[in-house]
Amino acid sequence: MTYQSPPKGNEISCVMHGIDSAILNNNKKLEKILLEALKKDKFKILGKAFHNFQPRGYTLVFLLAESHTSIHTYPEYNSLFFYLYSCRGEGDGMKTYEFIKEKLKPVSVDFKQRAIRVKKI
Amino acid sequence: MTYQSPPKGNEISCVMHGIDSAILNNNKKLEKILLEALKKDKFKILGKAFHNFQPRGYTLVFLLAESHTSIHTYPEYNSLFFYLYSCRGEGDGMKTYEFIKEKLKPVSVDFKQRAIRVKKI
Repeated sequence: MTYQSPPKGNEISCVMHGIDSAILNNNKKLEKILLEALKKDKFKILGKAFHNFQPRGYTLVFLLAESHTSIHTYPEYNSLFFYLYSCRGEGDGMKTYEFIKEKLKPVSVDFKQRAIRVKKI
Repeated sequence: MTYQSPPKGNEISCVMHGIDSAILNNNKKLEKILLEALKKDKFKILGKAFHNFQPRGYTLVFLLAESHTSIHTYPEYNSLFFYLYSCRGEGDGMKTYEFIKEKLKPVSVDFKQRAIRVKKI
């Protein structure tokens, strides 16, 4: 695809705590939720990589035309780490985050986001 | 592999500015540098995904036993975004970052890192 990288991006990084084990250990379901969230937020997926850890635990990454997103599960802690870097501009990706949060229903979230500025010097 | 996810991690996220175009547009070289950095820092690679944008631009992600790392190039800005999330503990991954910085020789870096705490609630 033709690419012109925008100079402003947004990084969302959070740990969701207190997620029900039934959903946290269902890797297929987690992938489906993330895919649905990305679709609703109009991200374009360019690639995927994942790993099912033994006895449990899951890492999933999607390459996006707009950068990348990832989840890492912590089943022993009923927690999930979610990361999204979007180069579509400041504050972007919140729709994805909100959708995931709505589906996973964490008891609490340690949420951070920050604007990324790329400049020519 | 057997997996027991540690509850403390470290996130490194930065934009390196003022990188020489010859290296920034050499995707193979960038992959080689990241691989060498991960090896020196004793990370275990479990998967890979990448995309070569047209006319330029590159996204590379490695899944790690210790989470994931990624680079996104911004050739128009002579800049590169580097991200590493490691679940090996606070402050981890700096060896990888320092190695990449040494090889890419950016004029300046907008550097951030933060500790990630995962807890059972």
